[in-house]
This record gives sequence, structure tokens and C-alpha cells, in this order.
Amino acid sequence: MIKVGIIGAGRIGRVHSESITKYVKGAEIKAISDVRVTEELKEWAKGMGIPNVYEDYKLILQDPEIDAVLVCSSTNTHAPISIEAAQAGKHIFCEKPIDADVGRIQQVLAEVEKAGVKFQVGFNRRFDHNFKAIKDAVVNGDIGEPHVIRVTSRDPDAPPIEYVKVSGGMFFDMTIHDFDMVRYLSGSEVTEVYAAGGVLVNPEIGKAGDIDTAVITLKLANGAIAVIDNSRKAVYGYDQRAEVFGSKGAIQTANDTPSTAILSNVNGVIAEKPKYFFLERYMQSFADEMACFVDSVVNDKPTLVNGNDGLQPVLIAIAAKKSLDEGRPVKLSEVA
Amino acid sequence: MIKVGIIGAGRIGRVHSESITKYVKGAEIKAISDVRVTEELKEWAKGMGIPNVYEDYKLILQDPEIDAVLVCSSTNTHAPISIEAAQAGKHIFCEKPIDADVGRIQQVLAEVEKAGVKFQVGFNRRFDHNFKAIKDAVVNGDIGEPHVIRVTSRDPDAPPIEYVKVSGGMFFDMTIHDFDMVRYLSGSEVTEVYAAGGVLVNPEIGKAGDIDTAVITLKLANGAIAVIDNSRKAVYGYDQRAEVFGSKGAIQTANDTPSTAILSNVNGVIAEKPKYFFLERYMQSFADEMACFVDSVVNDKPTLVNGNDGLQPVLIAIAAKKSLDEGRPVKLSEVA
Amino acid sequence: MIKVGIIGAGRIGRVHSESITKYVKGAEIKAISDVRVTEELKEWAKGMGIPNVYEDYKLILQDPEIDAVLVCSSTNTHAPISIEAAQAGKHIFCEKPIDADVGRIQQVLAEVEKAGVKFQVGFNRRFDHNFKAIKDAVVNGDIGEPHVIRVTSRDPDAPPIEYVKVSGGMFFDMTIHDFDMVRYLSGSEVTEVYAAGGVLVNPEIGKAGDIDTAVITLKLANGAIAVIDNSRKAVYGYDQRAEVFGSKGAIQTANDTPSTAILSNVNGVIAEKPKYFFLERYMQSFADEMACFVDSVVNDKPTLVNGNDGLQPVLIAIAAKKSLDEGRPVKLSEVA
Amino acid sequence: MIKVGIIGAGRIGRVHSESITKYVKGAEIKAISDVRVTEELKEWAKGMGIPNVYEDYKLILQDPEIDAVLVCSSTNTHAPISIEAAQAGKHIFCEKPIDADVGRIQQVLAEVEKAGVKFQVGFNRRFDHNFKAIKDAVVNGDIGEPHVIRVTSRDPDAPPIEYVKVSGGMFFDMTIHDFDMVRYLSGSEVTEVYAAGGVLVNPEIGKAGDIDTAVITLKLANGAIAVIDNSRKAVYGYDQRAEVFGSKGAIQTANDTPSTAILSNVNGVIAEKPKYFFLERYMQSFADEMACFVDSVVNDKPTLVNGNDGLQPVLIAIAAKKSLDEGRPVKLSEVA
Repeated sequence: MIKVGIIGAGRIGRVHSESITKYVKGAEIKAISDVRVTEELKEWAKGMGIPNVYEDYKLILQDPEIDAVLVCSSTNTHAPISIEAAQAGKHIFCEKPIDADVGRIQQVLAEVEKAGVKFQVGFNRRFDHNFKAIKDAVVNGDIGEPHVIRVTSRDPDAPPIEYVKVSGGMFFDMTIHDFDMVRYLSGSEVTEVYAAGGVLVNPEIGKAGDIDTAVITLKLANGAIAVIDNSRKAVYGYDQRAEVFGSKGAIQTANDTPSTAILSNVNGVIAEKPKYFFLERYMQSFADEMACFVDSVVNDKPTLVNGNDGLQPVLIAIAAKKSLDEGRPVKLSEVA
Repeated sequence: MIKVGIIGAGRIGRVHSESITKYVKGAEIKAISDVRVTEELKEWAKGMGIPNVYEDYKLILQDPEIDAVLVCSSTNTHAPISIEAAQAGKHIFCEKPIDADVGRIQQVLAEVEKAGVKFQVGFNRRFDHNFKAIKDAVVNGDIGEPHVIRVTSRDPDAPPIEYVKVSGGMFFDMTIHDFDMVRYLSGSEVTEVYAAGGVLVNPEIGKAGDIDTAVITLKLANGAIAVIDNSRKAVYGYDQRAEVFGSKGAIQTANDTPSTAILSNVNGVIAEKPKYFFLERYMQSFADEMACFVDSVVNDKPTLVNGNDGLQPVLIAIAAKKSLDEGRPVKLSEVA
Repeated sequence: MIKVGIIGAGRIGRVHSESITKYVKGAEIKAISDVRVTEELKEWAKGMGIPNVYEDYKLILQDPEIDAVLVCSSTNTHAPISIEAAQAGKHIFCEKPIDADVGRIQQVLAEVEKAGVKFQVGFNRRFDHNFKAIKDAVVNGDIGEPHVIRVTSRDPDAPPIEYVKVSGGMFFDMTIHDFDMVRYLSGSEVTEVYAAGGVLVNPEIGKAGDIDTAVITLKLANGAIAVIDNSRKAVYGYDQRAEVFGSKGAIQTANDTPSTAILSNVNGVIAEKPKYFFLERYMQSFADEMACFVDSVVNDKPTLVNGNDGLQPVLIAIAAKKSLDEGRPVKLSEVA
Repeated sequence: MIKVGIIGAGRIGRVHSESITKYVKGAEIKAISDVRVTEELKEWAKGMGIPNVYEDYKLILQDPEIDAVLVCSSTNTHAPISIEAAQAGKHIFCEKPIDADVGRIQQVLAEVEKAGVKFQVGFNRRFDHNFKAIKDAVVNGDIGEPHVIRVTSRDPDAPPIEYVKVSGGMFFDMTIHDFDMVRYLSGSEVTEVYAAGGVLVNPEIGKAGDIDTAVITLKLANGAIAVIDNSRKAVYGYDQRAEVFGSKGAIQTANDTPSTAILSNVNGVIAEKPKYFFLERYMQSFADEMACFVDSVVNDKPTLVNGNDGLQPVLIAIAAKKSLDEGRPVKLSEVA
């Protein structure tokens, strides 16, 4: 049984808390910290059985009983807190992205290496039952050599403009998951990126300097070609599908739905819309990534989403942004 | 190349005419007859390249050049015309049902046997691509021994009350196809029937002495159990599905649709309704049954839907009606 | 926050324990009892945070702090323990079936009524997301008046013969859920039953006096007709589907699968088999029925599966057995 | 009733002959020509009821009774024969591509314009029921403004190397249909193309100077982005799907299959593979494009696939090839 501290009590910090409390054997939460400790947070922590609530995350890092920390604070603090945590000898689960700056990511990874602690990045979709089924099929050779990887990733609605302004851009806050998915499903590294994008959902997003629609082509080291299509707004809900086509076949996934019910009436044959958004769609994957992290710590195994897995999608996002800006394909070697 | 005469130029007579003209190699239509020869019919026949249009079907039977006839006239004439045709030495394709009276059916079959002519009954659904796929799987042993056969058969709308009054009842004009389907898919004979029925669609149908909704259980000689569910009115269109469940698996079919398109919007994920009714749904099967009949004649093969296949569903329908009337299961031996 | 005692620590008792611990807010387990208290059970209870493990369930009934009990012991003890629990003033969640004897069920219900305690029966499938979607559609009027209800319920494998011998027969241990489902989906009472059954899976089941395959037709008070088809063994896994067809449309559900992945290769287009059996398929429904029971107790609401809901399926099972034995439809009024 | 001459009696010439004979009212075939008139061809023509078989196509052009010609000869003769046919005052149905050379295409279009004859290009997929359903939804506004168009087009097997060497390359003989589909479904013009491609199926194709796998991104005048993915070999059969995603929803199509049958067994839940190749998949569209062409001629309507529709995909293919060769996006204005 290990003890865990959670840094950041926002939405994702609480999701992980629930996962550990409900599903993960072998871990208990000793403390949670947040820059704003409200009565509501204290109440919530009490209900979850978390004994300590701190304003200062350093109290977590200083607690010798705590084996591992979850870095769920705001994105710009992921890197410095991870570095501190590594120096304090804590195993680290860090939310994605580690950072938008490659140098800072490399610093984190160097400190993690030096400290010899576990480090897992929050690419939870790798633990999704559907995408895992694709991955398993690819690894088992069911589709032979991968030739084409397609990832469709559309949000049910665009984020608030205020968020768009600070998010670092669609490639960094949304497509980053899809970049990871391409690497995960293909088992190969991205070597070149070409991004076509536009502002088709909301002109305000364009004014904020971002795009809301994109098709991104990625060349992979194994010769395969991947393509991601993104939209900030699919009116029918969260559209999360993938397909890997290869020499022996193809495997694809459909969206999850609240039920399998199909209504036939004068208007047509009507199935349910996809589960609305990431909390509904990926809840099981959040629990599973947490169980996997705890298992890595408890049983001293490598994490399934390591430091390099945190770095590569950032490099791809940087290349994609450069491609979009310059209207040309960009090699990853240009930005690494 | 054989020459064919068509007796009855109603809807089904014309469907078969089109099939022969367009799809069936090895046959041409020399004449068509109808009790009412209109200008429209003459025009239509001309367009189809049919050289002769008669009021009297006997002219067809007397034509020595005509090898085979299609009996597409009104149901009560199927038996007498078939008998005459057999006596005239013509091969016979007879629309279903041969007759509602078992004795008359047996008379037809006896005359056919005596004359040594081919005789095929119009159970076109045996030639439908979906039901054939089930049949093939059963014959190939893909599902092992059949245990449960389920047939869903619902019309898009109830027929006019005038038709209901003369149709002989739902079991004879609609379920008759499903009775045949149970025999076809299971490869076994029906031994006992239990019919539960009601008037849920239209009270006028009840006043006319018929039902519009039914669930019919059939025990088969091989131990399997079949169940048919019927409705005169499915507002979403023609619902025609079947499933055979067995020791090694199950095979089921879905409805055919005009296209595979699926629209996702705020209301749901919407596929097309089934093809509207039997002309849309079963057009290919009408052509294929005709090709099969012509092939039987030309190459002297047994027909795929023979006299006994015409008789058995009538026996089952009689048993089903008796079961409904008496509120108990009825053995086929009681009505044979 | 209520305190709960669990009587019976077999599979289902543990399933409910996990549900309460992990998912149900407002309840905690104070004690669990079992006729055989092993070291393994004590260890398991400790891991679940259950403070007391008793051999004698009466210790639970005598504990004034315990508000509600879950009767998860062997079937023949459901009725007597429920009666004692009612007399002890405990709210009761009772696993299905309450009893195979109608008189004893009525005794339980009388005691429950007298004590004024909550009583819920473990028909968990009512809480399944798929069947709830059908129910909601029916209640919302999406399919108009129900005309035909179809329930397919097939187990992945037959139980051991030893179990078959003591189970009370397929209608009582398996179809009982489907009888409940017909009442639940239709919102109407069963008035007459006709059961056709056979031994097609395993002759040993026949020797044990039971059947393994059945098609059961049920007439409902609202005029609708229901049909259930059962098999003890579907080699492809747990087949749990339903359809309600009505005047304005039809709604049907498909099986749940581990993932939505579809593999296309030279052999076909291959989806996953259904989730294997009831623990995989209905886990969420077990949690939800428990949350619902606790909510009924805490907030003094009627339970969603009450005493009559426990009685009716037993009556239907008795009628079905009589129908099978006598080869005729049996009215519920004959057995009530 | 118009009279038609067919130039070229290869596979596609015969497909069109069958369509006209069987499905198209208002047209009859007076003659067919081929550079090699074999006994087999004469026999076939006789069976089709085509009275004249010529070696010299000019005999068709000179026949004053012939209203329209179908140019089904080898690709390099499409342009010169179309020009001659226009000069002879014949309406023209020309197989795709008109030519690989833009100047020659423009010459054809100029002659057609001068002669005032109808001109339709053989992009049959526009008449496919699935793609038409998408088109109709887009035109009806069901998906709002198109944002992303996805076309998947994979052949069941690579063509012979000898064919690859003379085909003009994958973009010209295969993707050309998909380029047309993007224009058709989006209702917008392509402005820029980026092609990523590789040789993953068969190294011999690479040695012949071609590719066998590609992902092509197209920017459209209306701001939408399209992406096509191609493979010369999908082992599971002909994979022909499309999706248009827009502001109000998305519409997508699945492959057509020989039947809707689904087999569930220990290996999974198995549907049929797609119809094998273009003759199976697109037979109905071939008939419908022919009916549409005849209708244009008979009723003096504009053709639904006109000269510009023949030109644009060639321009896109040229740009795609240039993009692939130069590793950069290419504007259509660069190659027009």
C-alpha cells in the first residue's frame, strides 16, 4: 500500500482522487493541495476520506510518508513541480502536457532520471478500452504492417475564448492527445508533419490567434502515414474514433454511447449520440491509468507512458504549428 | 431459349415479366393474358416486347410453342388454372398460396406429378440475399444444430379493409411467407403450432374477422422451436428479419436500407428506414426465383420450391388459425 | 448515512458489498454474515473495510445500529430471513426469487407490510442502461402503445448439473429475470403463458428433469403479446437483448461488448463477442439497484422493485412450468 | 427513343451496354466497335441484341441514325475520339479521365461547346446510392456548412505491374474518382493539394515509378478541408466510404455488403466483407449514370457530370503528383 499526494484539486485532480479511492487497490491518498483551499474543497476531501488538505504543495513533497505525487496543477507549473518532486524522491504522475517548452521538458526528464523515480504522463486515452483494442490488434499482428492510421477527434463544443487565449493553441491542448494516439497505435515515431487548419466554428477563435478545425498529416519512421482530423465543435457530441489499416486488414473503433438502444420510427432508425465529453467517455481510462501508475510504483515496473511519451507529442505540436504558420510540411528534426 | 406465357397481368405478373425481360437469360415471353385487357396493358406489353395480349388464358395453354406458364391470376384461380396447365403439358410457376383448401392443393400436385411438368411456388423470399445467407450458414453447419428460429415480419401498413375481408386472413396472405421461411431456414418440418393474436393496429380489421398482430410458436420435427412475430403495420417500414440460433452460434439478418448513410446531429445518430415494402425489398429475389424456374425447365432440374413446399405452409396456416380460434396448440396431423 | 448488514457472503453478496463501498453514497456496511466464515472471507471483509464478520446472521438482525439488510443467502432462506428481518424492523433488499412458493412469498409481503419497512427485490436488470433506455422510450410514448415485446436471454454456458438439480428449473432461476423484464418493459401484467421447451443443449439437463431451451409466449393485460426465447448455452457469450414494438415505432437493444473495435480481414468484418456473463454485463446495474435501495431507505421513497414485483414473476414461472408440462396455455389466474 | 453507338467493347463498354439494354428506357444500341472484333465479341453482341459490330469506330460516327456515342476505348484515345464525335454532332458520354493533358481536355471541351452536343464524363460514383445520400444531406443543409470531408478509397488488390506502368499513376487512374468525390460532396472547388504517399503494398509498384498508399489533403474554396486516404490493396475487399462533417452534424456511409447477415460464434460477431470490387459495388451507379445521360440527350437537359467536372480532377491529380514529387503543398493555380 503506497501513499499518494495530489497537487491541484481542480477537475482532473478530483477525477484521479475518485479513481484511487474507488478503483485502485494498493494506494491511498494522504493529502491534497490547492492554491485555493475553500470550504467546499475541505468538505469534498472529507467525503473522499483524504485526511490532509494543504494550500502549499511543498507540504506534500516534504512528507516522508508520501511515496508518489500527482501533478494536476495548472499547466505552467507541471515542469517546476515535477522537478521539485523528483528532487524530493517522489514518484510522479504528471498531467499532460509536461510543458510547451522542449528545454523545460528535457530538464524534467533529466531530473526524473537522476532521481530514479517513476514518471508517467497523463495520456489517459491509451487506457481506453476501444483504443486498447486497436493497439492490441496491431501488436498481435492482426492487421499486419500498419500503412495508414486515422484519428478523428472532435469536441462537443468549443472552449470559452478566455481559455483559447491561454491554452497554447488547439494543437497543444486538444490535438496533443491525438499526436500521442498516433504514436501509440502505430508503434512508430513521427518524422514529419503537415497541418491544414482553419477557423470554421467560431471567428472569435481566429481573432484569438487559434484555429478550430484541422487536418494533420504525419509521416512515420516505419513508412506509415497518419492523418488526424479535428474540430472544436461536433454538435452531436464527443467524436473519438480511430482506424489502423495495414497489410493484413484494418481495425477501427466507433464511439461509445450511453446505451445500445435503437429507436425505429417514421423519422428513421435512431441510435444514441456518443457519450457527451471526456469525463463520460474516458472515465474508465482515468481509473486504469491510475491503477497502472500505482502498479508501476508498487511493483517497480516501467510506466506505460514515460517521459519520452510526454516529450514527443509536444515536439509534434510544435512542428504542426510551424507547418500551419508556414504552409509547408515540417520535419520533426527541425524543431527537436 | 424457352417461351413463357403469363396468366394474370396484375402487379406480380408484371414484376415477373420485367424480371424475365431484363434479367433472365434463356426465356422470352410470348404472351400475357388478363381478364381485363385495357389499352394501358396493351401499351405496357408493347413496351416490354411481349407480342401477344389475350383476355382468355386458354389461348396461352393451347399455344404449342409456349413451354411454361406463370400463374399470377387471382388466388382462387391458382389451383384450377394450374391443373389445366399441367394437363396441357406446360411447366408451371404458381404464385402463393396454391389454394387455401388442402384437397385442392393435393389435386394440383397429383396432376403435376401425372403430367411430369416442373412446378414452382412463388415463395420468393427464399431467394433473398439475406435469408439465403442464413440458409447457407445453416446448411454449412456454421451454427451447428438449429435450436431456435426467429422470424420478424411486419408490413409497413395494413391492407385496405376490403382486401382483409377476402384475403383469407393474415395467416394465409402474410404469415404464409414466414411459415415457409421457418421450414426453409430450419430444414425441418413443422409439427405443432400455437398462435397468439390480437387486433392492436386497427379495430376494423377485427370487425372483418381477422387479426393484425400475432406471435406464433412452431415446434419442428428436429426438436427446434421457431417463433414468428407479425404486425400489419410498422410505421418505420417493412421489417423483415430472421435469426437462427444453434449449438455452434447464431446468424441473424438486418433490414435492407436505401443507403448505408448515417447522419449524426443534435437529435441522434440516424440511419435510414428499411426499404419501404416488398417491391423495394424483394425485387432481386423476384428476379432470382424466375431465373431459377427457367433454369429448372431449361436444364431439367428439380425446382427449388416444389409442390410440397406449397402445401406445407397452407397446412401450418390452417393449424395456426385453428390454434388462434381454440386457444390451444394444434398439431399439424390434426389438419393434414 | 445508513448502516447495512449483508447476509450471505457468496458471489452476489460480495458484488453488493463492492457496490456499496465504491459507488453508493449514503451507506456503509457494518457487518456481513455467512454460514461458513473462512480466513479468506475475513481477509476480504478487512480489505473492504467491513468491521464485523459473523457466522450467525441473527447478530446482524439484533444490531440496533443496522438500518437495512441485504438477503443474499441461499434461495430457500430468502423468505424466512426476510420475515425475521421485517420483524426486527430492518429494511430489506432481497435477492430473487423471494421463494418458489406463492404462499411463502405472500407471508413475506404481509410481514413487510406490517413492519412498514422498505422491501426491494434483486431484479437488477431493470437498472441496466440498455433496458432502461427501452423502458424510458416506452414511458415517454416514443413507440406508442406496445404491441409486441421480445426478450432474448441466453447464457454463455449451462450451469453444472448439480446446480440444475436444485435450481428449481430454468424458469425459476433464469427466465425469472425475463418474466420481470416483460412486466417492466410493457408496464402491464401477464395474464396467460404458453411455454414450448426442449432439451437441445445437454441431455443430462433433461435427465435432471429440466429443459435448456424455451420459447415462451405471454399475453398481457393491455392486449400486447410478449415472447421470450431462452437457451442455457450460447457459444458466443451472454446474449441479452430486448425489443418493444408499438403503434409509433420500435425500440431494441444490442449486446454490450468489451470494445467497439471492428476488425476487417480476409475472414470478414469482425466485432467483439458480447460481454461474457452477468458479472461483466450487469455490473453497473448491480451498483445502481443498490444506490436506488439506499436512496429509498434514506429518503423514505417507495422501492423501484417492490414485493409484488417479486411475486409476479414467480407466478409466471409456475404457469410456464405448468404450460410446459401440460402442453397448453395456462392462465395466471389458474396458479395465483 | 435514341440510338447509341458504343466505341470500345472492353469491360466498361460491355457494362454500359448491359445497362442500356436492361435498365435504360429511351435508348437502344445500334452498333458497337472495337479494335479487335473477335468471334466472342460478335456472339456477345448478338446476345445483347446489338445489330452491328465494327472494327472501325468511324462507322459509328458516320451513321446519321446514331444520336450519341459512348467513348469506352483506351484512355489515350478518349480525347481524339471525343473531338471527332463532337465534330460529327454526336452527343458524348466519355469515360474518365478525358485525358492526362490539360490542353487536350480543353480542346475537347471547346469542340463540344462549338458543336453544342451533350457531354458527360464517367464519374459513376456520383450516382452511387450511398454517396448520393451524403450529397443530398449536404445539399439539404442537414449537416450545415461542410468543414471536413473524408474519403476512404481502397482497392481489394493492386493492378498488374504492366498496368501500373501505363496507367499514368495512382492519382490518375484511382484517386481521380476520389478527387471528383471531394468536389461533388463539398460542392466546392479544390484550391490546394498536399499529397503524402509511399510504397507499402508492393515494392514492384515503386520500381515502376508509382506509389500504392497515399493520404492527400485538399483545401477547398469554401474553407473546408478534405482528406483522401488510398491503398491499392485492402485484403478485406473494396473499401469505399466517405464522411462530411459540418456545422450542424456529420454524415457518413459504410460499405455495401452482399448481405446483412451477421454470424455470432466463438470467434466473434462476424459480418460480411464489402462487395468485392467496382463491378459488384457500383453496378447500380453505372446503370444510373447511363439513364441520366440518355435523359440529358432525350430531354435536352444539362448533363450531371459535365466537361469541367472532367477537367478539375485531372488538374487536382497533376497538383497531387507535383506535391508528392516536391514534398510541398501545391496550389491548383500552379498547374491550371
